[in-house]
Amino acid sequence: MAVHEHRLQVYWGHCDPAGIVYFPRFFDMFHEAMESWFSTGLRAPYDDVIVERKVGFPSVHTEADFQKPTVFGEAIVVELRLEHLGRSSMRLGYRIRGEADVDDVRGTGATVCAVMDLDPQSERYRRSMLLPEDLRAAMQAFKDR
Amino acid sequence: MAVHEHRLQVYWGHCDPAGIVYFPRFFDMFHEAMESWFSTGLRAPYDDVIVERKVGFPSVHTEADFQKPTVFGEAIVVELRLEHLGRSSMRLGYRIRGEADVDDVRGTGATVCAVMDLDPQSERYRRSMLLPEDLRAAMQAFKDR
Amino acid sequence: MAVHEHRLQVYWGHCDPAGIVYFPRFFDMFHEAMESWFSTGLRAPYDDVIVERKVGFPSVHTEADFQKPTVFGEAIVVELRLEHLGRSSMRLGYRIRGEADVDDVRGTGATVCAVMDLDPQSERYRRSMLLPEDLRAAMQAFKDR
Amino acid sequence: MAVHEHRLQVYWGHCDPAGIVYFPRFFDMFHEAMESWFSTGLRAPYDDVIVERKVGFPSVHTEADFQKPTVFGEAIVVELRLEHLGRSSMRLGYRIRGEADVDDVRGTGATVCAVMDLDPQSERYRRSMLLPEDLRAAMQAFKDR
Repeated sequence: MAVHEHRLQVYWGHCDPAGIVYFPRFFDMFHEAMESWFSTGLRAPYDDVIVERKVGFPSVHTEADFQKPTVFGEAIVVELRLEHLGRSSMRLGYRIRGEADVDDVRGTGATVCAVMDLDPQSERYRRSMLLPEDLRAAMQAFKDR
Repeated sequence: MAVHEHRLQVYWGHCDPAGIVYFPRFFDMFHEAMESWFSTGLRAPYDDVIVERKVGFPSVHTEADFQKPTVFGEAIVVELRLEHLGRSSMRLGYRIRGEADVDDVRGTGATVCAVMDLDPQSERYRRSMLLPEDLRAAMQAFKDR
Repeated sequence: MAVHEHRLQVYWGHCDPAGIVYFPRFFDMFHEAMESWFSTGLRAPYDDVIVERKVGFPSVHTEADFQKPTVFGEAIVVELRLEHLGRSSMRLGYRIRGEADVDDVRGTGATVCAVMDLDPQSERYRRSMLLPEDLRAAMQAFKDR
Repeated sequence: MAVHEHRLQVYWGHCDPAGIVYFPRFFDMFHEAMESWFSTGLRAPYDDVIVERKVGFPSVHTEADFQKPTVFGEAIVVELRLEHLGRSSMRLGYRIRGEADVDDVRGTGATVCAVMDLDPQSERYRRSMLLPEDLRAAMQAFKDR
């Protein structure tokens, strides 16, 4: 399955008094990985999709399992996989690992996103909508890569 | 099942450009609800347990489902229930609701915490340990309430 | 000078690996203190002012000095004073102290806010505007208290 | 004056309901710019300095002025300059700008950091200390670059 890799540095402000990443920060990292996936994996920058095209992707479910701590100063990779592509939702799987070793897994996670109409002029405003065809095609192409 | 209620205000900084709580912030709220539960539900302030007694509660699993958005300016309640009490772990269930109505549920979640020895002098340092007896008794008493 | 007191708990997620509040978090606390001041000090809830009345208060300047660290688990108070009330701006002064002792000062700060028109229909959209008269009167009354 | 450039993307979670960066987040960005400066500008990774060498850099003063908003999805640069190098403190100046244009300045800021002994075995533990000579030399070399 195709993988989008989102690289990042663990900064001081990500970490708690135990010196490790405070776990809610991983959900920020998951979201940022999704945003960079839209830009580089789908060639559809997330801000264009949200702001210009008024299509939103609210999370309806999310989860994570943590196997090993990630400490201050580490370089890590958040891997994103498109686990399921539905007509008006998708499931993104995440894997947090050390940068130097693909098997140095710290945790895994997933988010199920709905597709939501954000156009205030639309009669479906703030309701579920079908994933626009071009985005769907780009996601399918990523999945098949 | 006994409930610990953690009340809070949805501030500007919790919210995203859609004007609703950015979902990773709910995991901060879950953690804060756990911290206030230690203080008022267990009479064992979380900072004493961590810093003085050197017993930690790292999350090994967490999850959340979001049903309805929570918007900027709302007063909400995070309800905490002790869903499972093990020998060296526990599962805390969360329910996010509007302050005015117990049935106005926005989302639910859960966190499984391990119990970890944080004493650098201990031979079990940073490894799993049994929940200390007094904390276990206080949690059981909360559960039976 | 009248004081609005915003009380809060220092949670795990506010703190860095040194076990003290990570300083950017104090600016969140300053903003939250301003939001609670609008509600309880001015009787004009911040979300009503922003969302319904479409009047915004972007920060154009902010600063803070830190004298003593604030550690995980402490109960603190952020004091807010209205240091200057202009026609289209205001300066809010902040003082961070331990809850138990008014002289236990940890740091001070200030924010200068502009007043901005957030109404997309207005010809002054996203530009500076005069502080609405009722808000100005409420702020002056707070200052004179 | 030598400049360290810290490049970043403005993510969804950095932004508030007005669709612009919530100003406390800029202080996170300033801190992250300082951390990347230690690694690439001084060749002394911040985590080594803090964790291994037990030398800390608490902020005693910070400030920022905001000229223009930074919106969701933008690529920006935080420029860092070493404005003053003292014996046991330093002043770092920051400039936030759009990535595409060096004159597209959004705001400026500064942080004064003390140098603190973080070694629990030291008699100066948690007190001010002289900046270690090699770090001082690296900072001076950066300044003179």
